[in-house]
Formats: sequence, C-alpha cells, structure tokens
Amino acid sequence: MSSKKNDTKQAIFDIDKENDFPDWYTEICRVAELADVRYGVKGFTPFPPWSFMSMNLMFEILEEVLQRKDHLPMYFPTVIPETNLTKEAKHVEGFTPQVFWIETTGSGEKLEERLALRPTSEAAIYPMYSLWVRSWRDLPLKRYQRCSVFRSEIKSTRPFLRGREFLWIESHNVYATHDAVKAQIKEDLETTKEVCTDNFGLPVMVFRRTQWDKFPGGLNTYAADTLMPDGKVIQLPSTHDLGDNFAKAFDITYLNKDNETVHAWQTCYGPAISRIYGAMISVHGDNKGLRLPFKVAPYQVVIVPIFKGKDVDAVLKYCVDIKETLKKAGIRVHLDDSDETPGWKYNYWEMKGVPIRVEAGPRDIKQNNVVLFRRDTMKRDIISLKELKKKVTDLGKEIDENLLNMAEAKFDGLVVDAERYGEIDDALDHGKIARVPFCSIEMDGYPCAEEIEKNTRGDIRGTRIDIDEKSEGLCVACGKVAKEVVYIARSY
Amino acid sequence: MSSKKNDTKQAIFDIDKENDFPDWYTEICRVAELADVRYGVKGFTPFPPWSFMSMNLMFEILEEVLQRKDHLPMYFPTVIPETNLTKEAKHVEGFTPQVFWIETTGSGEKLEERLALRPTSEAAIYPMYSLWVRSWRDLPLKRYQRCSVFRSEIKSTRPFLRGREFLWIESHNVYATHDAVKAQIKEDLETTKEVCTDNFGLPVMVFRRTQWDKFPGGLNTYAADTLMPDGKVIQLPSTHDLGDNFAKAFDITYLNKDNETVHAWQTCYGPAISRIYGAMISVHGDNKGLRLPFKVAPYQVVIVPIFKGKDVDAVLKYCVDIKETLKKAGIRVHLDDSDETPGWKYNYWEMKGVPIRVEAGPRDIKQNNVVLFRRDTMKRDIISLKELKKKVTDLGKEIDENLLNMAEAKFDGLVVDAERYGEIDDALDHGKIARVPFCSIEMDGYPCAEEIEKNTRGDIRGTRIDIDEKSEGLCVACGKVAKEVVYIARSY
Repeated sequence: MSSKKNDTKQAIFDIDKENDFPDWYTEICRVAELADVRYGVKGFTPFPPWSFMSMNLMFEILEEVLQRKDHLPMYFPTVIPETNLTKEAKHVEGFTPQVFWIETTGSGEKLEERLALRPTSEAAIYPMYSLWVRSWRDLPLKRYQRCSVFRSEIKSTRPFLRGREFLWIESHNVYATHDAVKAQIKEDLETTKEVCTDNFGLPVMVFRRTQWDKFPGGLNTYAADTLMPDGKVIQLPSTHDLGDNFAKAFDITYLNKDNETVHAWQTCYGPAISRIYGAMISVHGDNKGLRLPFKVAPYQVVIVPIFKGKDVDAVLKYCVDIKETLKKAGIRVHLDDSDETPGWKYNYWEMKGVPIRVEAGPRDIKQNNVVLFRRDTMKRDIISLKELKKKVTDLGKEIDENLLNMAEAKFDGLVVDAERYGEIDDALDHGKIARVPFCSIEMDGYPCAEEIEKNTRGDIRGTRIDIDEKSEGLCVACGKVAKEVVYIARSY
Repeated sequence: MSSKKNDTKQAIFDIDKENDFPDWYTEICRVAELADVRYGVKGFTPFPPWSFMSMNLMFEILEEVLQRKDHLPMYFPTVIPETNLTKEAKHVEGFTPQVFWIETTGSGEKLEERLALRPTSEAAIYPMYSLWVRSWRDLPLKRYQRCSVFRSEIKSTRPFLRGREFLWIESHNVYATHDAVKAQIKEDLETTKEVCTDNFGLPVMVFRRTQWDKFPGGLNTYAADTLMPDGKVIQLPSTHDLGDNFAKAFDITYLNKDNETVHAWQTCYGPAISRIYGAMISVHGDNKGLRLPFKVAPYQVVIVPIFKGKDVDAVLKYCVDIKETLKKAGIRVHLDDSDETPGWKYNYWEMKGVPIRVEAGPRDIKQNNVVLFRRDTMKRDIISLKELKKKVTDLGKEIDENLLNMAEAKFDGLVVDAERYGEIDDALDHGKIARVPFCSIEMDGYPCAEEIEKNTRGDIRGTRIDIDEKSEGLCVACGKVAKEVVYIARSY
C-alpha cells in the first residue's frame, strides 16, 4: 500500500491537531498518502489508493441510499456547449467566472463552439430533459450521475476541501408540482443525515441559505454544515429548490392530465464526496493521524504478526488463517507481513487510521488468543480466537458510534447568542458559532448582511430548518424588528 | 425507466440486424434509450440509465478481477499540463492531434500553461510514479483508475463504438524487470478473456499488433478483437509492453538490491467499457432488439402481471411477493405494474433485452405457477412457484452460455487462407477474415503493409498469440519468404 514503508522516519506522526490544524492537515495528506500536491497544476491533486478507496466506499453508501429512493444512475458528457451554459441568466452569471474553456483541438484547430468543462451539470442535462420529459407519466424523473466537476477557484486551494477538480454526485429531478419538489428537498436532507451523520460520523446543522447565498438560478438552497477542528464550519451536501426557473430557461414542459402543456418543477442535490472526505478525516483524526470510520476504511482490520525466533512459520500461518476467517466474513483485512518491526507497523497503521488491529505472536497461539486493538481509544484487549469474527463486527460498530459521539460533543455549547458585532467576534474567536437576530434573509436583508460581514470575521450561514426557533429582538445591523435568527460562523 | 412508455408505437422493434446492421444499431440506441445523439457536440453522447447501469455492472466485474489480481484503485486529474504530455516523443506525436486544449478560464483569463484533457493518462501518472517509486521494495506497483478520456476523433463517431469521450479503466504498472512486464501482459490477456468472454459473452482473437500499429511510445501492443455483425472486427482491451521507454522519459528509477539506481519497466492496460458495451449489444442483439447477458442486465427479471377483471389485487399481490422473493435472492428484478397491456410490455422489455420474464395471472395463482420466458430463445415454460428462485438462477447461467455459444458459432469457418489481394478482398466481402503470409511485422514490413492496405479493403490486425501457427509461403506483398502469418480484416 505504501511506497515509503522503508522510510522508518515516516512511521511516527505526532502533531497537535487542535492547536495546529492547518499543519496537521497538510502533513496527514502527505504522510498518509491521501493527495499529492506535486502534480504541477494548481488545485488538481492525484488521489492515491488510501484516500480513493475510502471515497469509493463513500460513493457506494450514497448510491445505495439514492437508488433505494428510486434514483437511477446515468452519465452525461464532461463538456457543455457555451450556448447551453448561457440559457439561465443567473446560472451563467454565477458559474462563468469559474469555467475552464476548450476552444481548440490538436495542433490548433478551432472548435465551432466553445466548450465548458462542467462546473455543475444543469446546462448539460436540462436540454436533454426537455426532450425526455413529455407527459405526466414521465414524472417524477429521478436521476443522478457520479462524476468530477471543474471550477477555477480563485481562493487558495487545499486537497479535498477546495480543489479545482472535485468528485461528487449530482442528482437532478423533475416533478409535476412545487409540493413534490419540497418533498424531494426533505428527502435529500434525510439522505444527507443518513449518509454523512449515520455512516461517516459527521453531525450537522441544517440551514436555509440566504437569498444572496443560494444556488445561482434557483429559488432556495438548503445545506448541511459541519464543524472543523479550527472552529470554522464547512458545507456538506446542499440541495436546491429550482422552482420552475430552469424549466422555463431550458423549456422543460409536460402534458398534464388535463392535456395542457405546463412547465415542470425541479430540484438538484450535490454531495461532493471529495470534500466530505476532507471534512471527515479532519473531524475524526487525532495527534497520531487518521481515525477512519469502520464503514469507510479501505482496510478495516490490519493483522500484525509478532515474529519471535523460530516461530516465524507458525505465527504466519496463524495470521493467514485469521485473515481468511475475517475475509470470509466480508471484512476488509490486510496482513502486514513486511520486514518492519511490530512497533513500526503499529505506528504506521495507526497513522493510516485503520480502525482495528489484530496482533498475534507465539504466546497467543498457545492460548488460542489474539490481541485486539482499537484505534479510536488506543485500547487493547485479549480475546479468544473463537469470538474474533463477532468481536470485530461489534467493535466496528462501537468505533463508528464513538467517533460520532466525540464529534457531537464538539457541538455542545457551540452556539452562543450574540446581539452586537463585538459579541459575534468574541464568539468566533472562541471557536463558537453566533446566533444572531436578523431582519430578513430575503434580498431586502442584503445590505445588513454586507454590514455584518464587513464588521465581523464571520459569514451568515442562514436560518436553521432542523430545529424550531422564534426570532426575538432587533436586527444586529439595522435595528429593525428581526424576522429571523441567523447563524454566523467562520467558514471554509 | 422509460420516458416513452406511453408511446405504444415504440414497443415494437423489428429490424433485420444481419442485413441492416448500421440502421439496427442507430435505432436500438434510440428506442432502447442507450445514448442520446441530440446532445449537440459531435462525439459526446449522454448515457441514460439503461446503458449506464449495464456499464456500471461491467466496471464492477472488471474491477473485481483487477483487485483480485492486486491492483489498487486511484484517481488522477482530468487535465495534463502540456510539458508533461510532451515528455515522451512518440507518445506526444501519437496523441497530440487528438487533444482537446484548455487555455483560458472565466472571462478569458489565460492559464500559465496549456492543459490537455487526458487522451490517456501516462503523462499524468508517470511524473508522479517518478516520485512514488524509490526502491525495489515499492515494486511491483499495480494501480488503475476508472475515468473518462477524450479524443478529438476525426472519423465519424458512433455512440459507444467511437466517441470523443469514452469510459474506461486504465491500469498502469511498474516492475523491476522486463520479465515481470511480460508476465503482466499475460495476466492482462487472461483478464480480458475472463471479463469479455466469460462474463460478457464475447469471443476474441488475440493479436500482437504490428510495429506501426502499436501504442505510441511502447515496445509492443497486444489486443483482443471480436467480430461485429457486419463482418468487421473491433478492438476490445489492449495491453502494452512499454519496456523502459516511459521510465526513461519520465525518470522512473528505483534502487535495486545492489543499491544501484536503475530504470523501471512498465505496462499499461486499457479496457474501454463503453466500447465493449457497444460491441456486446451488437453481437448479442437480434431483430427484436437487445439481448443482454444476465450478468450485466440492469433488470435480470421483469414481472408482467396479467390482470383479468376483478382479480387485479390478487394478481398484484402475487407479483409483489415474487418480486420480494427474487430481490432477497440478490436478483435485479422489476415489476411492471404500469397501465400498458401485457402484449405491449412483452414487446417493450424484449426490445430492452431483459433476459427473463415472469408472467403471472389468475390461472397461475390457482395452480401456484408462473410462466417463465427467456429472451435469448423466446421460449416459454410453466414452472411451480416453489422452484422459481432456483430456475431463475439456473436459467440466467444458461442464457449467458447460450449467448456466448451463438457468438462463438460465428467464429466457425471465419478465417480463410488468402495468398493474393483478390483472395483477401473476396474473403472480406464474404464477411470473413483473411489469414495471409507476410514478410515481417517489425518496421521493415511497413512498406508491404501500405501496399496491402492500398490494394485491399482490409487492415492488418497483427499475428495471433492465442494459437500456435507457423508461417509458410511468401509475403503477399513483396514475395519474400514470409516470417509471419497475419490476419487481415475490415475493422472499426
């Protein structure tokens, strides 16, 4: 798995994540071989097997949920003709600054029309939906694609968290009514919780974004944020109520039961798996490196044989048998029979974040035991070989629950009320999120938002939709009666 | 699944595939909703669910084999900086004419360096391999990625068979010796047979390509061809012995056990799943539409309820139970409970190529039976509900064997010996492949190849490596003693 195993210095990783998160992140990406920043094109990083295998498992989990909810997979071209990209005015305005353009091929032959690398695929997919959707019988149409998208970010880039090519799933759905769209939004937010929280261990707060921070061209954007170790929040999947705006721009109509041609209603939903991966390793990692959830670890169990003198063959056989037993039980297991010392291997696989380690040496063989080590708590236990399969399965679940619990604990007392700019910055400086009375998240609140973002170090994340809360008091910026309670945080 | 179900005219498909293959192909792509040619950019076609779900299954089968043979997945950027693309002289010469170039972003900001959309990823991956490979301990390095690649084909394009964006897996491997490279080539050819023949039902002939038809920059190319219904052959996966050419161009060296820095040896292997899908549907289809192998059919079984008067509820319940039984057995099953008539549904799902149909009506319920219909032979059988699960599983295997047998039968008497241009064309005109004595497939044979391809309608596919055969007679072009036996065919 590693091309650097023979470099013993790399086996020990020890950076204080809480106090030194940016360094921790850069360093773990390098030593755990998650992303290689030496590719030579800003914002484009190769993903070696250790990160990509986890992302593949994350995609599988997400796709299982989407398919269970009647979405079918499809695949659209990577390039979008410029004419299509410009059909929805706000959409083109929002995305054009970030587009990579293809104008020539070969030795300089000009294309008839410029092609954009997809920054998102509405403009690729909806012209086809306009042809595919004809009658109410065709609705709902629930489709998704797994692909990479391209955005020429101006901000500085970081592997997984902010790249110019990232890996995602985008789901694009067409409905007969706006009510059906709203039900889809609800379904998407449940999918986000099931996937990100229940499977990847990431607790979230769910927001309706402000009108000036929504998806370009849509009616409303709803998004889940999680908390990074540096106190900043990061957006996980977002889902968009497109209303009938895109249907009008791309001419998506259907014949209803009364035989009238009417515009359809749409949603789109975009979980960026590479970004969620970046958040996941950040939230769960510790000073010794990664701590991968059992569900998405490329290797769920690593076996380290403790060779002593003439027992080498017996120990190896014992370990190979353990490997076969676990493999048959559907567990992703790796036997590290390399030349390194056990101590080196412990450090190495702890740094790589493998959830469970099995150690076995001559003494264990005699007693038909193994040592079971769990990465999350760094605790060891001796168990009998007979119970190994069950113990590993149970421990896997326990580790994932524990990782989620630890992440959730960071949400305790996270939100503090603030009614003045100073209180907001004070909260942010202590790694908190400020809960602030605000006049309006419709466009009329925009001047107040500009004031706030000028006078504090935070961004307005929107209003919570996962909890009920009443607005009280006066807008922190204009002093008018606050219609909303917004959350202000530093963000990625 | 279909957006056109309500258009009853579409349920009947009947084109003579053998005599009218180009029309058959165009039409099946349209009515079975496999690829939509109306996207508006030449050579780029959206793949709706019915084709994409099969291709996904095909990728899964291929990836299982690769992983079983110790390849790990990874993901590299879609764009390649121009400097890297130009490092291997023959490689750049071979691929540059087909490259899509990115020079600007946003509203016209020039990039510092031109970026190519990957036509293949040697020039993306090998600069990183140069950093990743250090010592003999790192070897072999066996990696692959699943991605799409982009080639600005000048020839006319066809969905799946020849597109400007196609879906593939490319495996890139590094070894310590040339012998290890040769063993990998053998492994790749075995993978091709296991995947394409045993799983997708495509018999192949395996060739060593001529020196003028090999992968640009490599030493030798080995490829599997299958036979299309129009008598032309089409290349399925190819694998390349890169020697140490790319290692020299990209500086991939390692420290051997004697502590010397030496160049590594490499292979790459590129199964284009979208193209193999195009070949697969062409080979197995018939005049009524698709015949998908059981292993890669999105729905392996479709259930058609036969509603009669007041029995609707009972029939539906009977069918839902059947669906659940099959689903639990891991079978991909669809219950078509739409408003169409049974006859319409039969035609529709036959056209879509679903391997097995279950029909159930009031009479079947009484006798605890179902009707089992197989798409390959169009034969019906009445079976008891109890044996359904086993019968479906067995029949799935039988159908796949039968599809392969039928495809193999087309290879009987396919190859005919030819020693003159007229005999070659005569063979080709009868849908045969000509077996021809030829002076040499090294570069010194190139002038003869040019002569042959000028004077006949065929292409030289190379020498067979899956059978032993001796050259006899004189080169058909120059009349010198033939060192080789080459195969000449019309080709895609």
